[in-house]
Amino acid sequence: MPNIKLAVVAGDGIGTEVVDQGLAVLESVLAGSGTQVTPTAFELGAKRWHATGETLTDDDLEAIRAHDAILLGAIGDPTVPSGVLERGLLLKLRFSLDHYVNLRPGKLYPGVKSPLAEPGEVDFVVVREGTEGPYGGVGGSVRTGTPQEIATEVSVNTAFGVERVVRDAFARAQARPRKHLTLVHKHNVLVNAGHLWRRTVEAVNAEFPDVTTDYLHVDAATIFLTTNPSRFDVIVTDNLFGDIITDQAAAICGGIGLAASGNINPDRTAPSMFEPVHGSAPDIAGQGKADPTATVMSVAMLLAHLGLTEESARVEAAVAADLAERGAEYGRRPRWAATSHSACGAEPPPTTAVAAGSVR
Amino acid sequence: MPNIKLAVVAGDGIGTEVVDQGLAVLESVLAGSGTQVTPTAFELGAKRWHATGETLTDDDLEAIRAHDAILLGAIGDPTVPSGVLERGLLLKLRFSLDHYVNLRPGKLYPGVKSPLAEPGEVDFVVVREGTEGPYGGVGGSVRTGTPQEIATEVSVNTAFGVERVVRDAFARAQARPRKHLTLVHKHNVLVNAGHLWRRTVEAVNAEFPDVTTDYLHVDAATIFLTTNPSRFDVIVTDNLFGDIITDQAAAICGGIGLAASGNINPDRTAPSMFEPVHGSAPDIAGQGKADPTATVMSVAMLLAHLGLTEESARVEAAVAADLAERGAEYGRRPRWAATSHSACGAEPPPTTAVAAGSVR
Ligand SMILES: CC(C)[C@H](C(=O)O)[C@@H](O)C(=O)O
Ligand SMILES: CC(C)[C@H](C(=O)O)[C@@H](O)C(=O)O
Repeated sequence: MPNIKLAVVAGDGIGTEVVDQGLAVLESVLAGSGTQVTPTAFELGAKRWHATGETLTDDDLEAIRAHDAILLGAIGDPTVPSGVLERGLLLKLRFSLDHYVNLRPGKLYPGVKSPLAEPGEVDFVVVREGTEGPYGGVGGSVRTGTPQEIATEVSVNTAFGVERVVRDAFARAQARPRKHLTLVHKHNVLVNAGHLWRRTVEAVNAEFPDVTTDYLHVDAATIFLTTNPSRFDVIVTDNLFGDIITDQAAAICGGIGLAASGNINPDRTAPSMFEPVHGSAPDIAGQGKADPTATVMSVAMLLAHLGLTEESARVEAAVAADLAERGAEYGRRPRWAATSHSACGAEPPPTTAVAAGSVR
Repeated sequence: MPNIKLAVVAGDGIGTEVVDQGLAVLESVLAGSGTQVTPTAFELGAKRWHATGETLTDDDLEAIRAHDAILLGAIGDPTVPSGVLERGLLLKLRFSLDHYVNLRPGKLYPGVKSPLAEPGEVDFVVVREGTEGPYGGVGGSVRTGTPQEIATEVSVNTAFGVERVVRDAFARAQARPRKHLTLVHKHNVLVNAGHLWRRTVEAVNAEFPDVTTDYLHVDAATIFLTTNPSRFDVIVTDNLFGDIITDQAAAICGGIGLAASGNINPDRTAPSMFEPVHGSAPDIAGQGKADPTATVMSVAMLLAHLGLTEESARVEAAVAADLAERGAEYGRRPRWAATSHSACGAEPPPTTAVAAGSVR
């Protein structure tokens, strides 16, 4: 790939700051590699919505579709009603571009302190379903605002949708040393969806006989993430449970400022999208405090997805070295940490952080 | 109240063991108080289902209804299809008896070590809605078992149901020193249900002007439970989110072996039900290893609910003294701990524990 056409959706709040750092790292790691990156900025988010009422038009979507990958900063602003940008922009991108594998590593790097585990012990990845479950926008309300209001949310789960993400998760488990897959759901209560997931894991296991599996209810999963996070290798779960446990996983692995993610279209029928797990953190936006590490690690995932394995490894190694050097404080307070990407060739950014108070 | 008519549903696995200890504590704390307890055992759970195919008949329910309170051990067994006992017995009790306030304290007692906080720092209570949300059993599947299967789960939320639990949570917050209420939901994605909850909290706040409120998405709540659990006072949330975060809270406050709960009918139109948060732990059942602390603390909640405040305080003090003496190990492995209820007058039970591997 001589040229990466990159759609850049910086979005709101600290989105611009972290994306700038991510792009700087991307350019410097590609310098002299024979691969170039051509970024195209898309003005989407709160500003655009205030100006035009638009979140993501068909034209935006078609333009984005013509790219090789997407780098996204953060979506969401207190001046916009909750749900408008999340559903109309972020989830619309994930659903329209069929990002059915939402990949979220949970890894404790040397130098990052956690009271719950030793570095090296925790190294798992969550394969979160990205295109159905309770995120589909099915549901509504009647008699809204009256004492007779009824509001519903419908989780829609298809054999098609569950099977493809489960198969992807098995393949990832098979490629890892421990070859273990944990299904997280709540099949003792959500019996319809839960049993579909359970049956699918059992069926697809036949194609991956060397992968061992187990099952945890989502409530029990939060316990083990606290008491024994190193027990996990690959976790596969639905859209909502994946949202919840990956934030918890981030807290365990050094904080939300370090958590990267990829919204992957494994069939490559549309560009995949890489974004930090954190939100737009309006309370610290514009202050040069946002920790770009999660975005830089998302860039590493982007490079790997595009087959630039060596470049991806260099970015990850640079982040790991940076974390080992500066450490990362884990604790009761937000994490404020300087970052340096000199190992990637990028200029060290100013002292930066993501306030824990501003996670989305 | 000269006599407490107590319905006892020991249930499956370690249920019998922990309930026996709970009853012993109850009897000894009431000895000489002028109040007696008359327990009636209900044979419900896996054994009954295997024998008769019944989970909870109308007759069972009517008989249970005639009691002042219910003490429940644990429901669930690997020999019964997942969901049968949970939905047909445990949730049927909660729904039929209108247990709309599922009360789950998160408190770190002196002597209980947690790497995430100091004892005394963590003292919150989760008010989990108990009669609607995704737990209502609405949904189904079509073309089940085929590649065209579609399975749905419908979360049903009513203004009636949300308002009454929110009002209860405000009243509890008002009665506590910090007077703070946190709503946990996911209103940026589950916009229908989420906005009903948000609007309801805003509206009911007018009746409790001295209570401060804030809001957290459920994913962010799992972060704060990890990094800053002491920030919470009262949390109000829906049935599913409440299930998830109260297991996480238990892990933080010394383990699932200590977590008590009350399924409260605040209008007292039916008996309330008290149960440990943990499950039936079939892997350690019958070995005298189950930690009865959570059940004993549930007995304290039962006494408080029946107005026996002094007796309730004595049980809590006895548990607190026991925890301070023996400590409680928090960590990566299951908690194995001896308990002694001598301060309540009960015989010390054998060395007991709840295996973290068996939480439900
Ligand atoms: C902003 C929100 C819609 C989003 C989600 O729930 O997926 C976020 O929490 C995430 O995890 O990426
Ligand atoms: C057993 C199960 C139905 C139950 C629930 O989900 O409510 C349990 O996890 C709990 O928290 O009491």
